[in-house]
Amino acid sequence: MKRIGVLTSGGDAPGMNAAIRAVVRLGIERGWETFGVRNGFAGLMAGSFVQLGARDVGGVIQRPGTLLGSSRAPDFETVDGQDRALEWLARKRLDALVVIGGNGSQAGAHALSGRGFPVVGLASTIDNDVHGAEMAIGVDTALNIALEAIDRLRATAASHHRAFLVEVMGRECGYLALMAGIAGGAEVVLVPEVEVAPGDVAAEIRAMYERGKGHAIVVAAEGVRGGCAALAPKLAEAEIGFALRTTILGHVQRGGTPGVFDRLLGTRLGTAAVQHIAAGMTGILLGLEGGAIIPTPLGEVVARRRELDPALLDLARVLAR
Amino acid sequence: MKRIGVLTSGGDAPGMNAAIRAVVRLGIERGWETFGVRNGFAGLMAGSFVQLGARDVGGVIQRPGTLLGSSRAPDFETVDGQDRALEWLARKRLDALVVIGGNGSQAGAHALSGRGFPVVGLASTIDNDVHGAEMAIGVDTALNIALEAIDRLRATAASHHRAFLVEVMGRECGYLALMAGIAGGAEVVLVPEVEVAPGDVAAEIRAMYERGKGHAIVVAAEGVRGGCAALAPKLAEAEIGFALRTTILGHVQRGGTPGVFDRLLGTRLGTAAVQHIAAGMTGILLGLEGGAIIPTPLGEVVARRRELDPALLDLARVLAR
Amino acid sequence: MKRIGVLTSGGDAPGMNAAIRAVVRLGIERGWETFGVRNGFAGLMAGSFVQLGARDVGGVIQRPGTLLGSSRAPDFETVDGQDRALEWLARKRLDALVVIGGNGSQAGAHALSGRGFPVVGLASTIDNDVHGAEMAIGVDTALNIALEAIDRLRATAASHHRAFLVEVMGRECGYLALMAGIAGGAEVVLVPEVEVAPGDVAAEIRAMYERGKGHAIVVAAEGVRGGCAALAPKLAEAEIGFALRTTILGHVQRGGTPGVFDRLLGTRLGTAAVQHIAAGMTGILLGLEGGAIIPTPLGEVVARRRELDPALLDLARVLAR
Amino acid sequence: MKRIGVLTSGGDAPGMNAAIRAVVRLGIERGWETFGVRNGFAGLMAGSFVQLGARDVGGVIQRPGTLLGSSRAPDFETVDGQDRALEWLARKRLDALVVIGGNGSQAGAHALSGRGFPVVGLASTIDNDVHGAEMAIGVDTALNIALEAIDRLRATAASHHRAFLVEVMGRECGYLALMAGIAGGAEVVLVPEVEVAPGDVAAEIRAMYERGKGHAIVVAAEGVRGGCAALAPKLAEAEIGFALRTTILGHVQRGGTPGVFDRLLGTRLGTAAVQHIAAGMTGILLGLEGGAIIPTPLGEVVARRRELDPALLDLARVLAR
Repeated sequence: MKRIGVLTSGGDAPGMNAAIRAVVRLGIERGWETFGVRNGFAGLMAGSFVQLGARDVGGVIQRPGTLLGSSRAPDFETVDGQDRALEWLARKRLDALVVIGGNGSQAGAHALSGRGFPVVGLASTIDNDVHGAEMAIGVDTALNIALEAIDRLRATAASHHRAFLVEVMGRECGYLALMAGIAGGAEVVLVPEVEVAPGDVAAEIRAMYERGKGHAIVVAAEGVRGGCAALAPKLAEAEIGFALRTTILGHVQRGGTPGVFDRLLGTRLGTAAVQHIAAGMTGILLGLEGGAIIPTPLGEVVARRRELDPALLDLARVLAR
Repeated sequence: MKRIGVLTSGGDAPGMNAAIRAVVRLGIERGWETFGVRNGFAGLMAGSFVQLGARDVGGVIQRPGTLLGSSRAPDFETVDGQDRALEWLARKRLDALVVIGGNGSQAGAHALSGRGFPVVGLASTIDNDVHGAEMAIGVDTALNIALEAIDRLRATAASHHRAFLVEVMGRECGYLALMAGIAGGAEVVLVPEVEVAPGDVAAEIRAMYERGKGHAIVVAAEGVRGGCAALAPKLAEAEIGFALRTTILGHVQRGGTPGVFDRLLGTRLGTAAVQHIAAGMTGILLGLEGGAIIPTPLGEVVARRRELDPALLDLARVLAR
Repeated sequence: MKRIGVLTSGGDAPGMNAAIRAVVRLGIERGWETFGVRNGFAGLMAGSFVQLGARDVGGVIQRPGTLLGSSRAPDFETVDGQDRALEWLARKRLDALVVIGGNGSQAGAHALSGRGFPVVGLASTIDNDVHGAEMAIGVDTALNIALEAIDRLRATAASHHRAFLVEVMGRECGYLALMAGIAGGAEVVLVPEVEVAPGDVAAEIRAMYERGKGHAIVVAAEGVRGGCAALAPKLAEAEIGFALRTTILGHVQRGGTPGVFDRLLGTRLGTAAVQHIAAGMTGILLGLEGGAIIPTPLGEVVARRRELDPALLDLARVLAR
Repeated sequence: MKRIGVLTSGGDAPGMNAAIRAVVRLGIERGWETFGVRNGFAGLMAGSFVQLGARDVGGVIQRPGTLLGSSRAPDFETVDGQDRALEWLARKRLDALVVIGGNGSQAGAHALSGRGFPVVGLASTIDNDVHGAEMAIGVDTALNIALEAIDRLRATAASHHRAFLVEVMGRECGYLALMAGIAGGAEVVLVPEVEVAPGDVAAEIRAMYERGKGHAIVVAAEGVRGGCAALAPKLAEAEIGFALRTTILGHVQRGGTPGVFDRLLGTRLGTAAVQHIAAGMTGILLGLEGGAIIPTPLGEVVARRRELDPALLDLARVLAR
């Protein structure tokens, strides 16, 4: 019989609610009590808890966002902030904590773990840059939203023989841009990991124009040098053949109704979290790797970052012809 | 037995293909021949025609954009441009032309009509600012795309207790912003027709924050003074309580798969165009008014502009409480 | 200062929640108190009320179904059932009741009204067969769901050169079938209002097959003689050329996220209900007619039924060539 | 320099077009020529080929179905049928063939391979029952369509306090039912692999009703004994507490716009097919296993069938509480 906590932290991601629901219901199956922490680590430092029963997580699996709320909490990087959190965890007599979030959140999880508290992290971020997780919760849904936007822009691009520059999320990681770009049949994909001079991008588009392509879609991660705000005027000046329009997708990518993949992934990760806590395996991140849920020590997770596969960038180029 | 032309002009709108299809198939029913003009008035001046049979418009009703291509053609405002168009219309022995587009396109239609050529205009623009049409082709689909984005932003706003500023299309007309705002339950709606000082907007949001609202959505038309790019920093400075994020929807609003409303409207307008040409009634715009397809003289259409109903702005405010 | 009740009855329809929300918030604007009745007339007879404040209808505009619950309540057709309802209305000191539903529900509204209680009905049914409403709440969303299914079936029909028979809702009224059929480009549309012999349907499909069409979509209302269950084997036997598959859409048509049209319609009708009650105008149904919200006496509503426009059936046939 | 063929066979699946496109474009990259075979093995026996260039597969990645057409071709099981196919492959001087389809299609691929022709199979079937592929092309999109339907039915079930029985595809394999059921939060999931007496199903639903659940969703694969047509009346008779409604999703599950997962999977499989043919590795099926594209000998593929993970059935039960 255990008492466990669960929190969501950092940017919200579709599928977080499926993970919370699985933690709660699998816990009940074992006779445990589960307490949600409101608004991530900020709520943990402030002692903002709510007990969660089976009915409290009814009807949430299809909801975007996180029912627990989330926040970014720089205070938690201080020893003082962690002290307050540990005090609350002790006062509420919790035996373990599940932390659902991306790299920043797992750094927090690692800090708590380093202070001796049993923590299990679940990879959740639409950037998909967590080491130990080939697909984090939220990535698939965010990709589908970006893809839908690209499909729509292609329709209007084709009607007007235009080029569109589409900025998708990803400050340091081009995963979303690359995968949405390949799936959307983008003519050019730009990621922060590989810098390409605007002149070279323009020359590539111009060459497509001259080969007779009727329109072009350029998908860029927000983290490309200067962002699309800087890139767009440079492309426009460079005479790419097509008239250019820019769209910045922004936060709509986060808020979609979670698809099957993210609901199942959240469910499997939440299930595995309870199993690992029951087995006394903590200080780990659980993530999908090679199609299975695999534990990785939190120390390794925070020391590394998931890298982009450069072969996929080449593939994007070959497919765009 | 007639030979008629059809073109789409200005911004593309979902449902244009349904209108083209109806013109072609209703024409065939009467034994007519129909010629599509490529890329709007630019193609008309250049003599770019393609004959359209029943099979050429098969499988197009569900496609976004326009199969004929579109463009903005400032040349057509000159007498010389119109001369070239009239020459081509004569050379192809066309008896009438159907012009599908917004205010700019109907100005072109009116010019041709003034030069003695039989023209029927069909109102199509996602701005919904054409006099003679309470709902233009494309408006409903664009509204649904904007609404879907607002629903998504609300999910992430609620998770983070944030405010979102969402810019939707509409340079001179706030229809899209107002209707999507009401349907999306927006806390504040901003339109070009009614200027509101940024300080007043900020105060309104701040008041909601203090009343305990967990998040706020502000929907603004792109035509509000300075656009969202200017408004956002002013709101952020004004201490509205919530952290603020901005999303600019842009051209994704045009490219959606047309919904039922736009397919039926396009179909009804295309059908009515053929009927009016057969009856010798030209020099008119056909649009939905009071639930029926009504003709309005093109001269009246270009002299006026559809206005926003100020009562709806008040309603938006009452509903947001 | 008034106390009013609101209930939803009969089949649920997307947009009912927008109407409830508008009734509550417009009531608050006037200082009124609003009470929701749970589960339609069944709840009214059982005295199942819940007071609704501004926050109770927050976040509901985008939800399908009805937050108040609904039911079919044959008891309410008896004088005894109505007596119980009137007793509860008196005991709760309600001044008026808003009844959101289709023909059966408006018959209940009319009965209460005939007993002297002030009632305003709002037309809501995906069958779209209410006299006094050219578009009832829920129709547009249901049409879009049916359309999406037809688009999908067309994709698989085209891949396999098949015919699909699609049954959409509509026991006595073919509106949904006809409109979804036209918007989906159906080859044949079958409605309960016009009986067509299965042999004639088969001959029509066979003719298309012989003209070289690659596939065919037949959209039928559930109310066609025998339903699709009876029709399908007759078509299959008749050698239509194509292999035939059948899909029965069923209740998925009800449960969609309401689109812009239904949210705005629900909002406008709920708003008008409060205005008409304030003005002492009751015993009426409010519905969209000619693009405006118009009152029709409940006695007239229950005596008639909205008819299908036969010209649209012909149009469907012409467009299918 | 090679000449290769590609065909799609059996039920169409979203993502087939992405696979065809990748085969064609990766082939061009190597200077190969690619020939599409129309309508699967039927077209192969009849010599129905079409050469595919880069532009022929432009704009197809987002289209559902298969641009090549598909069919079921029992003739191909005969030696005579295979002889005709081999003759055409020789006459067209093809070096290898890519076969995109499910178990039946891979049996055809295996037959050709056994006759000495170089074949690479790509797993594509919404049943997800191909050995050698943990996720076949089309499964993710079909799951999302089924999930969307379940979400919608839940909305109307909740409004009316009803139970819904939803039949999804899967004649011999319950994968789709199980995964859509877990993701949709179904109260009960029924699969062909594990027979459950209708009385036990009814007792389970009744118990939920008595525990106070407001509604229930039962997801069943079409292959459960007797299908839902037989199950529904038995449940209805057994007094489950709720009124019961049945929906049979049918072929809408096939025809969706492919999502990111299926477009990427199709792209990766098509890419790998060209690479394996170039390397002289044929007589294999390529499928996703453990997150990577892995070859499995066709002989092994046809001898086995992918099995359902029974642990997931238990998980579905635990999560439903």
